Amino acid sequence: MRLSPLLTDLYELTMLAGYLEEGMADKPAVFDLYFRTNPFAGGYAVFAGLEPALDCLEQLRFTDKEIGYLAGLGLFKPRFLDFLRAFRFRGTVEAPPEGTVVFANDPLLTVSGALAEVQLVETLLLNLINFQTLVATKAARVCSAAGDAEVIEFGLRRAQGPDGGLSASRAACVGGARGTSNVLAGMTFGLPVRGTHAHSWVQSFPDELTAFRAYAEVFPDSSVLLVDTYDTLKSGVPNAIIVAGELNQRGHRLRGIRLDSGDLAYLSREARRMLDEAGFADVRILASNELDELVIDSVRDEGGRVDIYGVGTKLATAAGTGGVALGGVYKLVAIDGRPKMKITSDLAKATLPGRKRVLRAVKPDGGYVQDVVCLVDDAVAAGATVYDPVNPLQHTTLPDDVRLVDLRRMVMAEGRRTLEPEPLARMAERCREDLERLPQGCRRFVNPHRYKVSISAHLNDLRSALIQETRARRQPS
Amino acid sequence: MRLSPLLTDLYELTMLAGYLEEGMADKPAVFDLYFRTNPFAGGYAVFAGLEPALDCLEQLRFTDKEIGYLAGLGLFKPRFLDFLRAFRFRGTVEAPPEGTVVFANDPLLTVSGALAEVQLVETLLLNLINFQTLVATKAARVCSAAGDAEVIEFGLRRAQGPDGGLSASRAACVGGARGTSNVLAGMTFGLPVRGTHAHSWVQSFPDELTAFRAYAEVFPDSSVLLVDTYDTLKSGVPNAIIVAGELNQRGHRLRGIRLDSGDLAYLSREARRMLDEAGFADVRILASNELDELVIDSVRDEGGRVDIYGVGTKLATAAGTGGVALGGVYKLVAIDGRPKMKITSDLAKATLPGRKRVLRAVKPDGGYVQDVVCLVDDAVAAGATVYDPVNPLQHTTLPDDVRLVDLRRMVMAEGRRTLEPEPLARMAERCREDLERLPQGCRRFVNPHRYKVSISAHLNDLRSALIQETRARRQPS
Repeated sequence: MRLSPLLTDLYELTMLAGYLEEGMADKPAVFDLYFRTNPFAGGYAVFAGLEPALDCLEQLRFTDKEIGYLAGLGLFKPRFLDFLRAFRFRGTVEAPPEGTVVFANDPLLTVSGALAEVQLVETLLLNLINFQTLVATKAARVCSAAGDAEVIEFGLRRAQGPDGGLSASRAACVGGARGTSNVLAGMTFGLPVRGTHAHSWVQSFPDELTAFRAYAEVFPDSSVLLVDTYDTLKSGVPNAIIVAGELNQRGHRLRGIRLDSGDLAYLSREARRMLDEAGFADVRILASNELDELVIDSVRDEGGRVDIYGVGTKLATAAGTGGVALGGVYKLVAIDGRPKMKITSDLAKATLPGRKRVLRAVKPDGGYVQDVVCLVDDAVAAGATVYDPVNPLQHTTLPDDVRLVDLRRMVMAEGRRTLEPEPLARMAERCREDLERLPQGCRRFVNPHRYKVSISAHLNDLRSALIQETRARRQPS
Repeated sequence: MRLSPLLTDLYELTMLAGYLEEGMADKPAVFDLYFRTNPFAGGYAVFAGLEPALDCLEQLRFTDKEIGYLAGLGLFKPRFLDFLRAFRFRGTVEAPPEGTVVFANDPLLTVSGALAEVQLVETLLLNLINFQTLVATKAARVCSAAGDAEVIEFGLRRAQGPDGGLSASRAACVGGARGTSNVLAGMTFGLPVRGTHAHSWVQSFPDELTAFRAYAEVFPDSSVLLVDTYDTLKSGVPNAIIVAGELNQRGHRLRGIRLDSGDLAYLSREARRMLDEAGFADVRILASNELDELVIDSVRDEGGRVDIYGVGTKLATAAGTGGVALGGVYKLVAIDGRPKMKITSDLAKATLPGRKRVLRAVKPDGGYVQDVVCLVDDAVAAGATVYDPVNPLQHTTLPDDVRLVDLRRMVMAEGRRTLEPEPLARMAERCREDLERLPQGCRRFVNPHRYKVSISAHLNDLRSALIQETRARRQPS
């Protein structure tokens, strides 16, 4: 995928011009991309959006038209425009593979290289990683609510723009959705595509039974009939049963019915009973209509008999507690080999300085205990004391029997991908496995267990020293 | 803009295949696109997204690659694939111009033509109109909160995907934003682009003053300095004042400062005082940090002195009460010349049958009174009795002195645009004018006045007749 390098905030370009002017464009710099709060007030997030991001980095070029537009803004000198004309991204990127379960304050991407290059890609990386990670997380929550039932993404029509729909379909499948209604996403990402029909199909015929028969005639083995145009239990389901019988006589079978309004728990129980009594235990029930993880949870609580959930708006736009955007940030942590941090009065908003590693402490049975962020040359071992990143008075000791596993690997070196592209199904599998290894309470929707992300003693010391140093140097008013 | 016709839900294609098989593909059909509830629990919406939608309709073609993909799904017959290969959209579209203030139950787009064509474009039209109308509405609310201060859209990094950012920038400017940080949106739509610098700029230098001086050196007449990296009032503003003085001595001037954290009402008052006392009354104050219409409202209530609001996430994702998607729907209202409607037990979800017009009742002083949806050959005049679309017992009489103005016009005839493209600035002006003509209470954020959208007596009669008829014909269980 090519994205225009102009898909960026103007200030990235003005800062670049400034760095060039100041002779700083080539200084080695390191940025971390991370978020400060788990989305949806939940216990975890699912990392996604890396492959498209790496693709974009590899292909980042300014076209003549783009340079011409920038020239016309009257802000930039010819020397800077020449610099852009020759621009290539040659930085190095570390990241976890997609589908990895991650947490607030885990550095996700670390991007290092010439200051100009790593600064320019800020907006682009944030845009891609923020949105896809948000949707993948939402999908994981919805799938966890659905249990053994399948989840299909149906959100294109209310997604945020054409690409909002396309990248949402991709990310939903990283998080566990089994398919999408979005045909272009099917083609682009090799996802299974699924669909039923609309109310307008039924309305286009003299009556519902004629409409069902016509659809089943065209798709004798893949029809899912929408049964709520007139009256679900009095008209839709009985008509679907007639058609299921007619299909059977011709050696075919009705794939399913779709409920799209009303009390889905009640209607699915009744529809199941009617289908079973008519001998159609294999006809599946699909439910849709403003679903999310909480609605699905309550449908299952009340004994709903839904086999497939079609989840649209709230999956594709990742609607839920905490808003519709992951607050990912991209912060300078080192320049010219010196660790840097942003100091604020709120320690939760201060950055973790220096080039770092992220270790995951894993129990002998494979369960995840906590993450530890440490400096790149730190030796953190089982039994070590580690510190809360926000409250330095709070510390904890790693159990003696944990293994410490690097969460991330190098995925791009000097502008070239070093990570083989993976199928989405592999990412989805990783997500499923990771979720099973979390402490149970992390998957709860309300007040989940807080999985610890600590910092090493050395990182804690470095941070304290930098805070002291900056306070001492601060300009007086 | 070309969008792939595969950017659609699978069921649009399976229904098309069905219509072709049944010999119904060419039946004349009419669909209405509308929404049932104003977004953000507000009093109005701002219509946007039409130009991109018309562009897409004009350019809708299936490529060989797309046909090949569909063939590989194993769902479709060769005859249908041939049909798609020759597919062009030749329908007719009526709509209001962009920037028009509209309401729940106003038919926005009416799309008529061959059933196959007008059905296929459902998902695409909904995707484009839903999102852009939502963001334009959000922008209008934010701008109305900001009063005389400017609003700039800053949301790209947390927008829902690359195009989510791009189309959000466009729609935000239809709704009243005066510019965007998104450079690609600037180039694509001719919008003013704006920016400041990031905290990383300041951190890349030994100290804040050096960083400010360096930036002002490169952009001596367009610098907006971010003053909160260390301490806004003790370090940032004093350093900005030093640089403003140095710029003045060289015949330049500091454009502004940016506040990005803390109590924006207090900090902007103090910063204003400090700048004024230093003789820099012309240096403007820009504020950012998780702004929306409610935060801006309270900053102004508390005497904040902000000249420019940079609004990001909550504008570009249209976050707010009522979720992040406009619930626009696209419903069949006539086929083969016969009016159709979807019947449900909830009259609010029933459709308005038949080919219709939308009239706006306008007072002699230009103020808007209410909208009336009527049949296309209806003669509705001042003084007429009109009906509530949901509660048929409730009716109202149009004042004697109103003019009835068509809200919509033909914008595409037989697949060709009949609407001249307009500059975004003209749409923004229309939006501003329309908002001023609304009853005051419609612009309130909390419990706004409900602007009436009524239906004519004939439409009300037609609807009652169709409900009777359908109930009589319903299949028994």
